[in-house]
Amino acid sequence: MTKKKPTILVVNDDGITAPGIRVLIEEMQLIGHVIVVAPDSPQSGMGHAITIGKPLRLDKIELYDGVEMYKCSGTPVDCVKLAVNKIFKGNKPDLCVSGINHGLNNSINVLYSGTMSAAVEGAIEHIPSIGFSLDDFSYHADFEHCRKFIQQIAKQVLENGLPTNTLLNVNFPKTKELKGIKICRQAGAHWVEEFDERVDPHNRDYYWMTGKFELQDKGEDTDCYALEHNYVSVVPVQFDMTAHHAIPELNTWTFDR
Amino acid sequence: MTKKKPTILVVNDDGITAPGIRVLIEEMQLIGHVIVVAPDSPQSGMGHAITIGKPLRLDKIELYDGVEMYKCSGTPVDCVKLAVNKIFKGNKPDLCVSGINHGLNNSINVLYSGTMSAAVEGAIEHIPSIGFSLDDFSYHADFEHCRKFIQQIAKQVLENGLPTNTLLNVNFPKTKELKGIKICRQAGAHWVEEFDERVDPHNRDYYWMTGKFELQDKGEDTDCYALEHNYVSVVPVQFDMTAHHAIPELNTWTFDR
Repeated sequence: MTKKKPTILVVNDDGITAPGIRVLIEEMQLIGHVIVVAPDSPQSGMGHAITIGKPLRLDKIELYDGVEMYKCSGTPVDCVKLAVNKIFKGNKPDLCVSGINHGLNNSINVLYSGTMSAAVEGAIEHIPSIGFSLDDFSYHADFEHCRKFIQQIAKQVLENGLPTNTLLNVNFPKTKELKGIKICRQAGAHWVEEFDERVDPHNRDYYWMTGKFELQDKGEDTDCYALEHNYVSVVPVQFDMTAHHAIPELNTWTFDR
Repeated sequence: MTKKKPTILVVNDDGITAPGIRVLIEEMQLIGHVIVVAPDSPQSGMGHAITIGKPLRLDKIELYDGVEMYKCSGTPVDCVKLAVNKIFKGNKPDLCVSGINHGLNNSINVLYSGTMSAAVEGAIEHIPSIGFSLDDFSYHADFEHCRKFIQQIAKQVLENGLPTNTLLNVNFPKTKELKGIKICRQAGAHWVEEFDERVDPHNRDYYWMTGKFELQDKGEDTDCYALEHNYVSVVPVQFDMTAHHAIPELNTWTFDR
């Protein structure tokens, strides 16, 4: 008996022409039947944004031989929603992979990242989902050392499934000297913004946002620690944002009617 | 001895001219010194998006007498970042409130909502933060019955603080017959999208995204249940998205080197 090849949705936030998604497509073609739905322009930092006030475009394109590909005018989350509803039409894919992002999405970046939000949306749709990111923002980033880990992790997820209502956030260090995979928690950190203030030719102020990532967590079980020590970090992510541990304390508050 | 009035940052996602933010400004003026930084256009569904590839505008405007107000060209999260860095300049506000949103942000909507993401960003910045939303999308929504609860909840947060790294997601039913406040967890639900397919005058397809909220959770401790039973729902929210409970299971997986 031959097993049916799994169907795999590939998405990203850097846009459909980014080198990172090409590597992910190639690796997924070794495992299953691939369909790509990705933004027609870069959507970094779009988080879990969806398009409400304007219509969406979804156009089939021929970019890489033998790969079914669609470019979408919307956000990464829009791509997943359109893929599930207009392309897979209820026959949900067996796996949703997002990336490979040019740049890390560890720690608090899980919230800002379009790559990770697309994977979160996959999980909300009950599709086993993984986001992949590399510690290199360059267009010419070298993803070669990520390939075998992507294979291993994707195969494990296809074989074992994932715990209910979770997905994986996988980040790769830039170094080629990888020590292996570590299961981690999201490190406590935030961005300290700096706004570069300028004046336009019409004498009006404007700002460029820049920032510095500030780690506030000394834990050795975090994704930041693993990456720093040349491990691939794998964080199980959930989309229940309830702070369950805080409920008893809030229940002691008194509110007047 | 007179206590110093608390400073309060007011933000939203419906835009600075929305009636909902005006009600919130009025209520916060009864408690503290208010500064408003809100988007110059509607930003519903923007989630935790930030503006990376283009510059931001931040302009002081005079809209309501005696209120310090700034309109921002960016997302709700951009507004919080600009407020903290360019307006408060390190003297962080004592409270950040977001809303009142025209429309519910209960359950899974916490992820899509710009209102809630602004509050999440406030919490990441270690500012006690609350998002408020009403079950009425209308521009002419009636927020009167929300006022006293907003007062009570904001005062409690100013007095007691919030558990570390949490914020509050407060939702109001449309009914005036409110039974009180319930501390809840986020209900399990998702949106079932429908894409309204049309053809433009140039004979190209486009889609309008519409959707139906589908509750998948029969729990009586959820925000959906509370709202359904005419309570104000209060969910403590965290921005650590780690599925801590899933770590032991993932540690049993074997990966080849």
